[in-house]
Formats: sequence, C-alpha cells, structure tokens
Amino acid sequence: MELLTINNVWMMICTALVFFMHLGFAFLEIGLTRQKNTLNILFKNIFIITIGLLLYCFVGFNLMYPGFGDGSAGIFGFAGFGLSSPLTDAGALDLAYNEGYTYWTDFLFQGMFAATAATIVSGAVAERMKILPFMIFTVIYVGFVYPVAGSWKWGGGFLDQLGFYDFAGSTLVHSVGGWAALVAVYLLGARIGKFKDGKPQAIPGHNIPLATAGVLILWLGWFGFNGGSVLSADPGLTSLTLVTTCLAAAAGGVFAAFVSTIMYKNLDLTMFLNGILGGLVGITAGADQMSPTDAIIIGAIAGTIIVFAVSLIDKLKLDDPVGAIAVHLVCGIWGTLAVGLFGNLAGADQFISQLIGVGSYAVFCVGSSFIIIFTLKKTMGIRVSEKEELEGLDAHEHGMDAYPDFRLNEH
Amino acid sequence: MELLTINNVWMMICTALVFFMHLGFAFLEIGLTRQKNTLNILFKNIFIITIGLLLYCFVGFNLMYPGFGDGSAGIFGFAGFGLSSPLTDAGALDLAYNEGYTYWTDFLFQGMFAATAATIVSGAVAERMKILPFMIFTVIYVGFVYPVAGSWKWGGGFLDQLGFYDFAGSTLVHSVGGWAALVAVYLLGARIGKFKDGKPQAIPGHNIPLATAGVLILWLGWFGFNGGSVLSADPGLTSLTLVTTCLAAAAGGVFAAFVSTIMYKNLDLTMFLNGILGGLVGITAGADQMSPTDAIIIGAIAGTIIVFAVSLIDKLKLDDPVGAIAVHLVCGIWGTLAVGLFGNLAGADQFISQLIGVGSYAVFCVGSSFIIIFTLKKTMGIRVSEKEELEGLDAHEHGMDAYPDFRLNEH
Amino acid sequence: MELLTINNVWMMICTALVFFMHLGFAFLEIGLTRQKNTLNILFKNIFIITIGLLLYCFVGFNLMYPGFGDGSAGIFGFAGFGLSSPLTDAGALDLAYNEGYTYWTDFLFQGMFAATAATIVSGAVAERMKILPFMIFTVIYVGFVYPVAGSWKWGGGFLDQLGFYDFAGSTLVHSVGGWAALVAVYLLGARIGKFKDGKPQAIPGHNIPLATAGVLILWLGWFGFNGGSVLSADPGLTSLTLVTTCLAAAAGGVFAAFVSTIMYKNLDLTMFLNGILGGLVGITAGADQMSPTDAIIIGAIAGTIIVFAVSLIDKLKLDDPVGAIAVHLVCGIWGTLAVGLFGNLAGADQFISQLIGVGSYAVFCVGSSFIIIFTLKKTMGIRVSEKEELEGLDAHEHGMDAYPDFRLNEH
Repeated sequence: MELLTINNVWMMICTALVFFMHLGFAFLEIGLTRQKNTLNILFKNIFIITIGLLLYCFVGFNLMYPGFGDGSAGIFGFAGFGLSSPLTDAGALDLAYNEGYTYWTDFLFQGMFAATAATIVSGAVAERMKILPFMIFTVIYVGFVYPVAGSWKWGGGFLDQLGFYDFAGSTLVHSVGGWAALVAVYLLGARIGKFKDGKPQAIPGHNIPLATAGVLILWLGWFGFNGGSVLSADPGLTSLTLVTTCLAAAAGGVFAAFVSTIMYKNLDLTMFLNGILGGLVGITAGADQMSPTDAIIIGAIAGTIIVFAVSLIDKLKLDDPVGAIAVHLVCGIWGTLAVGLFGNLAGADQFISQLIGVGSYAVFCVGSSFIIIFTLKKTMGIRVSEKEELEGLDAHEHGMDAYPDFRLNEH
Repeated sequence: MELLTINNVWMMICTALVFFMHLGFAFLEIGLTRQKNTLNILFKNIFIITIGLLLYCFVGFNLMYPGFGDGSAGIFGFAGFGLSSPLTDAGALDLAYNEGYTYWTDFLFQGMFAATAATIVSGAVAERMKILPFMIFTVIYVGFVYPVAGSWKWGGGFLDQLGFYDFAGSTLVHSVGGWAALVAVYLLGARIGKFKDGKPQAIPGHNIPLATAGVLILWLGWFGFNGGSVLSADPGLTSLTLVTTCLAAAAGGVFAAFVSTIMYKNLDLTMFLNGILGGLVGITAGADQMSPTDAIIIGAIAGTIIVFAVSLIDKLKLDDPVGAIAVHLVCGIWGTLAVGLFGNLAGADQFISQLIGVGSYAVFCVGSSFIIIFTLKKTMGIRVSEKEELEGLDAHEHGMDAYPDFRLNEH
Repeated sequence: MELLTINNVWMMICTALVFFMHLGFAFLEIGLTRQKNTLNILFKNIFIITIGLLLYCFVGFNLMYPGFGDGSAGIFGFAGFGLSSPLTDAGALDLAYNEGYTYWTDFLFQGMFAATAATIVSGAVAERMKILPFMIFTVIYVGFVYPVAGSWKWGGGFLDQLGFYDFAGSTLVHSVGGWAALVAVYLLGARIGKFKDGKPQAIPGHNIPLATAGVLILWLGWFGFNGGSVLSADPGLTSLTLVTTCLAAAAGGVFAAFVSTIMYKNLDLTMFLNGILGGLVGITAGADQMSPTDAIIIGAIAGTIIVFAVSLIDKLKLDDPVGAIAVHLVCGIWGTLAVGLFGNLAGADQFISQLIGVGSYAVFCVGSSFIIIFTLKKTMGIRVSEKEELEGLDAHEHGMDAYPDFRLNEH
C-alpha cells in the first residue's frame, strides 16, 4: 500500500510533466514560424490536447491495451468503449490493478502521450494546411492509428512478443508522429517562397524566445515522459533514466551546435535547440538500458544527424517549418536502432528486432496517414488558398490576430 | 511516518503547482488585454501573491482554521496572529498534526489558494482601475473576507455542518473571487470604447500566445489545486481527481469551441481557452465524487454555459476584459450545484445544501466587496482619468513600458 | 527501501525544478535587456545548461565530492574522470549509497546546480561581451572553479570542518556566481550609453512579461533548490524550508517595492521582481534553520538592501544590466551572514565562521575569475566592437533576429 502510494505519486507527477509538454510543443511551433499563423497553430495544439484526451477515454485506451496488458493483442484488439475501472466488491477502486499505479493514473499517463503524435504533425504542416482537414486527421490518427500501433508493443502485441524494445517511444510516439509528418509534408507541398530556383530559402521563426522556452519546457516534460515510463518509482531505474535523458539532451545540443558551426560558420541557436530535441528523442527508446557514456554517445550522434537530416530534407524539397521530421522521425529511428548497438540489450538479435519494429511502424504509419491525408486532399482539399497563405491563416481561418497591438512586417 | 512522508511530498508538489498558477493568471490577463496596461497587470499579480502570503501568515490561516479544523468556527473565529507551529516537548515539529501533511505544508498549500481570489478580480478590473485602491481592496479581501468565508466550510463552520460540499473551491475560491469581480466591474463601469451605441465592441487581447500559455499553466496548476485538495496522496482518490479534472477541462474546451463556432461561424481560440477554464472551475467542487462520464458532462455543460454567459454579460453592459465573471462566478456556481446532480453525492438534500452554500457566499461576498469598493470609490476614487486610460496605465502609474523596443499601434 | 523510494522521488522532482530555473534565468535576462541581444543571451543560457551538465559528468562531480562526501577534501581533491556508479556484486546500483537518494540522483541534482553560477555571470555581461570568450570562461568556471569551491563545504572540505554553514548556496552558488559577475563587469566596462556625463541612464528591458515570468519560474525552481537541499523528503524539514523560502521571497518583494516607491515615487515592477529574488537568495543559506518570522525579517532586509545596492553599483559606474550583482552577490553575502544572526545557529562563533566563509570565497572567486577573464581580455579580447554593440549581438554573432516579424525601435 505504501509502495503503491509512492509509485502512484511519481506517476501522477510524470503525467503532469507530459501534459506540460503540450505548452512546449506550442511554443516551439509558433516560435519557429511566422506571426501571421500563430493563432492557427495555437488553436491546433489546444484542439489536439483536448480532443486527444476525450478520444483516448472513449476508444484509445481500450484499443491500446485491449487485454489490460496481458499480451492478447497481436495486431488488433479492443476492450470496448469508455473507461471501465476495475472495482472491488465494495465498489472502491481495485488497487491490486498494478503495483506501480492505479487504473486512473494508467489511463491519464497514457492519454497524455497519445496526443503527442498529432502534435508532431501539427508543426510540420504549419502555415499552409487547412484547419478542418487537420482536425479530421487528428481525430483519426490519435483516436485510432496511434493506439493500434501502440498495442503492438506496449499493449503486448506481436512486436512485444518478437522482442522489440522501445522504452518510452522513440518509435511508438515520435516515429509514429514523424512518419505522418513526412507524408503530410509530401502531400501538402512547400510553402510559397520556400524554394526559389530550386534552392531552399530560410523563413525565419518569429519568436525565438518562445521557441527556446518551448525546448526547455519539452526537456522538463521529458523527465516525466521517460521517468514515468519506468511505470513505478523504482529508485535505481528512474534516476538512471533521468541521468541518461539529460546527458543525451546536452550532448545532442552541443554536437548539433558544434557541427553546424563548422559547416555554416554561424552560431545557430535553432540548430542547438533541435539538437537537444534530437538527443531527447534518440535516448527515449533505451533510456533505462544505457550507461551515462552510452547516453552521451547516442545523444551526440543524434545531434550530428540532425544537422545533416535538416539539410537532406531541404534537398528533397520537403518543407518542414519546425524540423519535425529530422527530430522525431530520423532521431526516432536512430534511437530505436541504438538499443541494438549500445547498453544492456546490445546485440545482433536485438538489432534485427529493432529493425523489424522500425519497418513495421513505417509500413503502418505511412500507409494509414497516406490514406487519410490523400482522401482528405481529394475530397475537401488540404491546402489553403494562395491569398490565405500569403495573408496568414490567423486572419482567414480565425478572424483574429495573435499580436494586434504590435506593428508587424509583411512577408 | 513513511505514509506521512509520501503524503507530505504530494502536498508540497501540489503547493508548488498552485503557486505556479499565478504565472498562469498573469499571462492570461495580460494576453487578453492591451499592451499599454501590461506592466500594471503584472504589478498587481506580483503584489497579490507576495502580500497574500504575508497576510495569510499574519492573520488569514488563523481566521480560516480558527480551531485547527475541529469544527468550532461557526461564522467567525480567530486563533491569533502569526503561525504557531505545534511542537513536541523536544521542540521538534509535531508530526502527529495530520497524517496527510505537516503544519507547515498545511499553511503553505492554503496560503497559495488564498491569493487566487484577488487574482480573479484583477483580470476583471483590468485597464481602468487605479492601482492604489486595488491594492487596498486586495489586502482586505485576501486578508479578511476570503479566510472568513473559507472557515464556513473548510474551517468546519456552519456550512460544513449543514452538509454543503465544495471539494476544492468552485465556490470557496472561484465564486468568492467572481462575486467581487462582478461588484467591481459594476462599480467601475466599462472601459472607454467598449460599448458604442449600446453595442459591445471587441477589444482584442494583445498577446494570444501568452494567453494560451496562461491557460495551459493554469490547467497544470489544477493538478495541484484539485489533486492536493484530497489532502493526502491516497492513490485512488488523487488519481480519480486528476482524471475528472482533465476530462472536464477537455470537454469544456471542446464544447465551448463547438458552440461558439456554430453561433458565430468563427474558430475562436479565446472561447476555446475560456471553455477549458470553465470546465476546470466546474469540476472543482466535486472532482473527487464524479465518474469520468460525470466529469465530461459537467465540463461540457460548463463550456456551453461560458459562451452564453459571455454574451449575457456583454448584454448587461458589464465590461469584463478577460471573461473572469463567466469563468469563475458562473461556472463556479454551476460546478457547486452539479455536486447535487451528478456523482456520489447527487440528491435533493445535497442540491438544497449546495443552493444554501451558493446563496450564503453570494450574500457575504457581494456585501463585503460592495462595502469595500464603494467606500474606496467615494473616498479616493477607483477609476483612472480618461487621459490615463487612453494612454495606458503603464505610462502613468509606473512610468515604464512593457515592450519599449517594439513599435506599437495606438488604440 | 520504501523510505529511499520516497526520498528519491522528492529529490528527482527537486532536480527537475532546479533544471527549470534555467528557463527562469533566460527569461529574466532577455526581459531586462534590449531585443537586439536576445538571441545571444538565449544561446549563452542554452550553452551553459548543456555544457555544464557534460562537464559536471566528466570532472565536476568528482571535484566537488572527491571522497564521496567523507570529508577528505580539504582544499582540493579529485575522484577521477566520469561517473563511477557504486554497484553491488550483482551489478545493480548500490542503493545503500545514501538513504536520501541514489548515486544517479545525487549527480543530477548537483549537476543542475553547477550551471547556475555561470548563468549569473551571463546576465551581468549581457549586451557587450563576445560570445567565444564567454563560452571559454563558462567551461573553466563551471568545470573547475565552482566544483572546487563547492568541495570546501558540501564536499566536506576545510570550511565544513570550520563550522561554516550554507544550507543551499547563498554563498556556494550565488556569491560564487556574483563575484565573477562583479569582476567581469569591471573588466568589460559599461555599455555604450549607460553613463552620460557621469550619470547612469536607464536602458529599459524589452520584454517585461518574460522578465516577470522568469522571476515566477525562478521562485518555483527555488522550491527544488532549497527543498531539495534537505537531501531527503523529511517532512518537517522540507516543509519548513518551503515556508521560509516563500515568506522570504514575499517579504523581499514587498519591501523592495515599498522602499523604492518611497525613494523614487514610482511603482517599479523591476525592483519588485529583484526584491523577490533578493529575498530568495537571502534565505537560501539558512532556509532550514529559520522560523517563519526570521525568514520574513531576512527577506525584508534583503529586499531593502537590493534598492540601495542597485543604486550603489550605479554610482560605482558598474553596469550590470539585470541587477545580478545586487541580487546574487550582495544578498548572497547578507544571507550567509544572517545564519549567524537569526535562527537556530545564531551566535558569535557562527557569525565568525560565516565571515570566514564569505571571505574565503571572495578571495578564491575574485582571484580565479580575474585570472580567467583578464587573460581572455589580453589575448582574444572580451568586448564586441562598437558597431556590433550598437547594431546588436544577434545580427553579428548569430546572423539571426529574435523577432523578425516585428517592427522595432532602434536604440
């Protein structure tokens, strides 16, 4: 009873921290884009966290844990609509549900994760996607695709049985969002003015203090994202996880800044920030299995990857305003594979399991997001008009400005 | 001892989260008003939290818990000035004070609540109230009215004995602030330009990113506001409370956005945000007594109420720049009555108790805030000059600007 | 085991809160300076927290706790490079390391502290120091000076044996940063335009909402900074510490606002904010040894000191854009001496020990920071060109703007 109480306190705190990440994402996304689309991005982020929680309550939790975690999922399972708390005969909550947390905590912690996948997409499609199809996409992706994909590993499904390992979601959360971001960016096309004569043009973000705050808030939230994924307050595992998480973040940032400074002769804060996020995404799959040295190496490689991935995505004529694909998809894949290369689980068998996992999610997420977004494109359209894009989504979709008292530059 | 330590850790965390709500309120209030009054609003918020804590130490705590919670309060009691920690013979803190928290934690958690009531008023009177009378009002309301009102229920007073239920303060905190906001707005009059030819004019808030951040920070703070009101780390109750709190917030936001979009054909982020707050205020009175479904219904109704309440307040020619009356008073009343309609306590007797509670606080808070503010109006005046209002309170009351490096629009 | 788990949960939360202080410092520093140097300050802050953690992992932790706290340090000791976790025979983490936290938590909590000292300097040298020498200074100061200085007391060194008391770092963190800030400001010289005809000119900060948010975030972080310095979740000590911390902050703010209003006839929000920080720094040395009344007195004196210290620093022609010297150095000294004047340890012997401690750190920190910064000045130079200073460090050092969509005033 006392141990359950401690564990549950830790899990509730981690839940609160993961919730707070939604402010981090919102700040990061608006900070790295133009002011004329700020309100639109905020609206999407607020929509994602609210509808996401409701959907996870109605269907998501029971799609993701169809057998309450007893491994019966396979590829697809569903335990019915709504929450059904396990009660004792006396009608009180059955505290024997799990020694690390109550049923309610389990739902809420997982529910806070669920919305994240759509948030990743939100940043990638910023400044040009119509809001209504984005909302429809969010409902389907958060309500159905994410939990089904999650059930394959965390719900005890076939990848769990194959030995695939993803501690806190380099793949299950970040790549699941990242694949959809990639598909959406491909189907949407680049923003007007992003490519001139085939060369990528910088479109600077309008509020770097808020972008920086977003990254620090996300880092804080990762204390809960990874720390809570221990699923108890086990002192050794939780504290090791926080150490590896923070060291990977630090190494990712320092290496991204270092490599980009060498390549571009410029102390680029945005690259520093994305390097931190890349390190965080990279360590997430194995944060509980790595030594501090492993964590620094994984983070440093993630930070280095970021610089080249951002450049590559530009060369592919993909327009990802906030770097979501480089951070969440590329570093998510890197982190997942790193579990087979570093730490307690390293080995050829594990590496192959990791590859199978990455491939399975690639197929399912690319396929499902393509079907959803392509259908939306062919029916209602997914891109705003040229006039709306130039004048900003805030004025057209919302009839409001984010900063009405400030004089602004037009571009 | 171990259980006390766990419980106390949870209560300290909740205390920190409630403290952090003051940043949420500050961001929300400045975000929804004009830049020329930003510094003034920040000054008020900083004043409220600092003077509020000192007053709660000097008199508030002992007015609110005159018999250390033994039910002897009735209508008014006072246990003397300052903190008097219960010490053992050996001079150490008596840890038998309560099994859920120490005496110090009790003081600090309740002290963080105390300042909230005045903060609610701060938003409603923004952009036109003189700062000195506001400071005087704050001292009296936080130092005397709030703790005496609180003693009626949480201090074991007459409403507690009547069976009135208010888990975390839909009435004791939010309506207590909301009634004073209503009175203050009525006595102050509307801002210049708010009503033209009898029709309400939109005065857009100057910083929507900060307003959005404010709401997310407040939601985060509500983890502590409601979660800490369990007064222990009881795993079943605390986690249920967090689930109902978050689901009500989500439902409130989604319904406010949905209803306002239907009514005004506009995806209004401000309404979305106020809907979230309405859902949070609405669930607060019974967050530990509701099922998830109850919570969603209560939140959804609160979100719907918000849209109509904002419109009604406009029609009554009351000028509430941030929607404080709709959020804190109207949804506070709704949430308090909802305890008699939904959840474990639902029933006619309980509903009547809730009505008596709502009525008692209405009489006391309207009466006391009217006496304070009317007296201030007749003596020193409560409204700034027309010139000061047009040019902004920052320049006149503080001689500083909030954003001196930015070029601004005048309006 | 259960007690360790609880204690460790508390310490991990405090670690997260101290980490979050870096956002507080970043917001405070950019808020109180001009927009043209915003990105530069953010870059420095992000550099400090990332490189700081890595350095603390490589060398700092083992410089600061050379004998794992067994008192063998004296003046200098080193336990070797990198982290060497104490493992049991079975290879698991040895949980007998400490009953209050694991080895990993110990490292991470202390690591979050380490970066703070450099952050204090960052604010003081803002708007005119070249970034490369600042980065070199940071590496040496955080990687070597801070941990060696820390070992004298917290690592069981000679000051610990002399009876010097510094609970959470009024001296070990805040003065260590403050002395270096003083030296740096002296060697750098004032910003262009700060002194005209020998009189100090106000250079207003460009974003007061973010400065205010910074202070509230720092206050929140102090729950962990002081609360975690108990080094366990002991319910009596932790909750007393939070109470004294918050009351000192409140009193510091109220007194700074009151005194400055009397002196300058102006409700100065910046002074209010620095008063809060002064109160927090002041209580830090003895937060676990004071009664609430002691805390209010210490905070009130700190708040009063701030007003005069800011004025004195101006008269000495020292240009400290954010008031770091007044807050961290002057109030750090005050708080350290106050341990000999108030609370459980008050007495002539203790006061003399505190004086010796203050003097020892003064000599070491002034000496080492002078050597580092003077060497940098004579070799690579520490000050940007006049053109760069006038046009802003963002454009010259980083080639980016913090707010490209906003129209700005030039000054």
